[in-house]
Amino acid sequence: MIAKRMQPVLVSARALRGGELHNWLRTISTQPFASEPKSPVIATEIPGPVSQELYRQMNSIQQASSVQLFADYEKSIGNYLADVDGNLMLDIYMQISSMPLGYNHPAMLQVLTDPRNQKIIANRPALGVFPNRDWPEKLKNVLLKKGIAPPGFSHITTMMCGSCSNENSFKNIFIWYAEKQRHGKSFTKEEMDSCMINQVPGSPKYSIMSFEGAFHGRTLGSLSTTHSKYIHKIDVPAFDWPIAPFPRYKYPLESNESENKQEDDFCLAKVEYLFDKYKREKHFPVAGVIVEPIQAEGGDNHGSPYFFQKLQQITKKYGGALLIDEVQTGGGPTGKMWCHEHFNLESPPHIVTFSKKMQLGGYYHLEEMKPNQPYRVFNTWMGDPSKLILLEAIIDVILKENLLDRVTRVGNYVLQELKKLENEFSNTINSSRGRGTFIAFNCATSKLRDETIKKLLRKGIQAGGCGNTAIRLRPSLTFTEHHANIFLENLQTILKE
Amino acid sequence: MIAKRMQPVLVSARALRGGELHNWLRTISTQPFASEPKSPVIATEIPGPVSQELYRQMNSIQQASSVQLFADYEKSIGNYLADVDGNLMLDIYMQISSMPLGYNHPAMLQVLTDPRNQKIIANRPALGVFPNRDWPEKLKNVLLKKGIAPPGFSHITTMMCGSCSNENSFKNIFIWYAEKQRHGKSFTKEEMDSCMINQVPGSPKYSIMSFEGAFHGRTLGSLSTTHSKYIHKIDVPAFDWPIAPFPRYKYPLESNESENKQEDDFCLAKVEYLFDKYKREKHFPVAGVIVEPIQAEGGDNHGSPYFFQKLQQITKKYGGALLIDEVQTGGGPTGKMWCHEHFNLESPPHIVTFSKKMQLGGYYHLEEMKPNQPYRVFNTWMGDPSKLILLEAIIDVILKENLLDRVTRVGNYVLQELKKLENEFSNTINSSRGRGTFIAFNCATSKLRDETIKKLLRKGIQAGGCGNTAIRLRPSLTFTEHHANIFLENLQTILKE
Repeated sequence: MIAKRMQPVLVSARALRGGELHNWLRTISTQPFASEPKSPVIATEIPGPVSQELYRQMNSIQQASSVQLFADYEKSIGNYLADVDGNLMLDIYMQISSMPLGYNHPAMLQVLTDPRNQKIIANRPALGVFPNRDWPEKLKNVLLKKGIAPPGFSHITTMMCGSCSNENSFKNIFIWYAEKQRHGKSFTKEEMDSCMINQVPGSPKYSIMSFEGAFHGRTLGSLSTTHSKYIHKIDVPAFDWPIAPFPRYKYPLESNESENKQEDDFCLAKVEYLFDKYKREKHFPVAGVIVEPIQAEGGDNHGSPYFFQKLQQITKKYGGALLIDEVQTGGGPTGKMWCHEHFNLESPPHIVTFSKKMQLGGYYHLEEMKPNQPYRVFNTWMGDPSKLILLEAIIDVILKENLLDRVTRVGNYVLQELKKLENEFSNTINSSRGRGTFIAFNCATSKLRDETIKKLLRKGIQAGGCGNTAIRLRPSLTFTEHHANIFLENLQTILKE
Repeated sequence: MIAKRMQPVLVSARALRGGELHNWLRTISTQPFASEPKSPVIATEIPGPVSQELYRQMNSIQQASSVQLFADYEKSIGNYLADVDGNLMLDIYMQISSMPLGYNHPAMLQVLTDPRNQKIIANRPALGVFPNRDWPEKLKNVLLKKGIAPPGFSHITTMMCGSCSNENSFKNIFIWYAEKQRHGKSFTKEEMDSCMINQVPGSPKYSIMSFEGAFHGRTLGSLSTTHSKYIHKIDVPAFDWPIAPFPRYKYPLESNESENKQEDDFCLAKVEYLFDKYKREKHFPVAGVIVEPIQAEGGDNHGSPYFFQKLQQITKKYGGALLIDEVQTGGGPTGKMWCHEHFNLESPPHIVTFSKKMQLGGYYHLEEMKPNQPYRVFNTWMGDPSKLILLEAIIDVILKENLLDRVTRVGNYVLQELKKLENEFSNTINSSRGRGTFIAFNCATSKLRDETIKKLLRKGIQAGGCGNTAIRLRPSLTFTEHHANIFLENLQTILKE
């Protein structure tokens, strides 16, 4: 299906360490695409000897065994990640899906040369108390910009990362839920006193419902809603909050419609059962539900628009808030700024959280979620203006270059080609699925998945796994058919082996 | 005591909005001290009309009632905070104690002009997987540098803010504690399965002991150890973890030694009682104790070296970890890089957390705390290299200019002068206390405290409150006797009124 013209260029590590690659990169244009190499450059095993030496240094001062290689970000360019051993990999994982435009994008570098922006970076304010003069305008023109904010949202609270965006959203939901029970009454003395010692009624036993296979972060509140891998959770105390099953579809979707609809209904029935049970039996009313539009870390498990529409209806029926966690899906990779825009919900969810590609964390929320008092959702920094400078540049590029349309087009192409490979190698890979370039497929076994990722790396392609058997694509928004072909062709070669 | 030569300069707001102030600031030297004004400049009530208009805009998109004014960080300089109405305030609060060198410090601005640093800012890595080539060296040369790392620490885990530094430290403590119970055995299937649904034994009912009046952050785990103000906690579920009393001393210390020693012993006895009770009665063994060296948000409550020495001994006796939260005290304001260096502990604590003045979050930990497996203390970003660039510049200035010695000298001066004011106005203020310039004093009532802060602001001094009746000083490390005199003189004037 794909011509064999994109094999990695094998060059000697010695030559590259002599600075050849670096010189070559310097001579080419600074345009993001023109300056990329034509294909990966492999100089050593990965991790190579320099990475291995640096690993030893780093592991002597912290637990570093998760490190895969040491990168050279000065030399990385566009969709290509350079490492310290002279390798230049096509990166379809992009820092766990957090780099929207690839490496060293000129638009991002450009804004950092502006002395006014340098002053913003050097003078980090406590945004909740002393924001800069341009902060309300920046929020409006960047995060709340039409076409950028999810439809229906005019309110925003900024944070720093995905975990703290979810944690603070939980707090916001609890505050909103408690105010509804209070019917406009003031806090009681008993509430004010008891919360200081972590006891009811001031510290109520409210809960947040989450789903099996979910990933929402790793701090103690968000970790209580994460259920993707035991190693994230073992030995850490957790809140006893309800956990519902998330749909697990059979693929291809078009030939399993009725079975998948049954799966949706089964999961939805369980959600409704848990709302009822936690209120009546456990006396922990469910204040809200947190859900990913696509369970990413858990294996790229998709839910149908029908599932999300009904989930919203059930959540409303029981007086809860719906929190859609778009930390990994937000910012464009599904072909829309926000994945839940694919679901045609009858109204916006209560909260949408973000981080990663958005550079800073935070959440959009309905006006009704705005707490009546200050200092309830608050911390020293409340986000980071230095990240909004970068996000502003990123959004300009997304809009000017119509990157979301490109993501849709390239994603459709990749999915179509993956399905062809699936048919060709049906004992080895299956269940190709995705929206935009947010794509995954399963391997027959975990072992085969891990081996395939290693073989891709040997061919100069940095991919990532998720769940037990899935390989996920998380390329930048500047990923093209050209890059896709390099990936597809090498995957085909590996599958043939 | 102090000459009346530092009254705020009253100029018309109209003149300033015409750009006069800005022009004046541009004509003067870029040296941090030479370029500061001689005294505050007051043009309007604070918040002024421009701030009030911006507040209306911001409050229409988020809960903004905590905002005090809108700043102009381009015009702010050194120890002076400029606002949008042409006011220029002596800032002794410094963004809730998070700006170490004041505004627009040339050393910080300088590093941001370097294109290599701009590339580091534009290419934010997933540090736990693909760190940059210089990351181990940067960690060693900045955070682990001799004289910068707390004595006895060679291990570091970077994070982003104070809350997540404490949350991840809790996890690290739980993992360490569980491994000790496991005596080298592997995880059981029951542990691996039960943790996925938040149940024992995989999600154990371990606890972290904290203190009345403590502040350790606002995410759900750290909030369970925060007990300073009800508005931070009400309506949010919490872990039922033990809470011990923290010493509340009588001042001046030198005339209340025996009573304060009794207070220490009372608190320590309660700590020991809770270790025992939670293990036996509640079956929630205490895995660790978190404590601030000075309870900051809770009212600048100090503990003696004796208290901390004994606390460490008791924690060791019960097999727990001691976590010293230096988020507000760390980075130099007490005259040492770390406040706990004042306590002569018999060995380093298990963990020291930081954020604020350090620009990024994180924690120092003993080697024994290093988890055996990767991905247990982990997240997408694991800190932020762009903040370490700034911290490196800050540390250079601290060391080259001997700022810690200056902090000690200026702090002693302020404390001595405050004690004189206390004697002069003994019905109004009392209990001056501090280390370095990390200083506070109490007002006779909450109302008087709030009024005094407002009056200081009218005279062009931005101060902050903490606890019920305290005014706290949190100036930058570049705060001098000159700045101190402006504050002291105006305080004296207010007290006389």
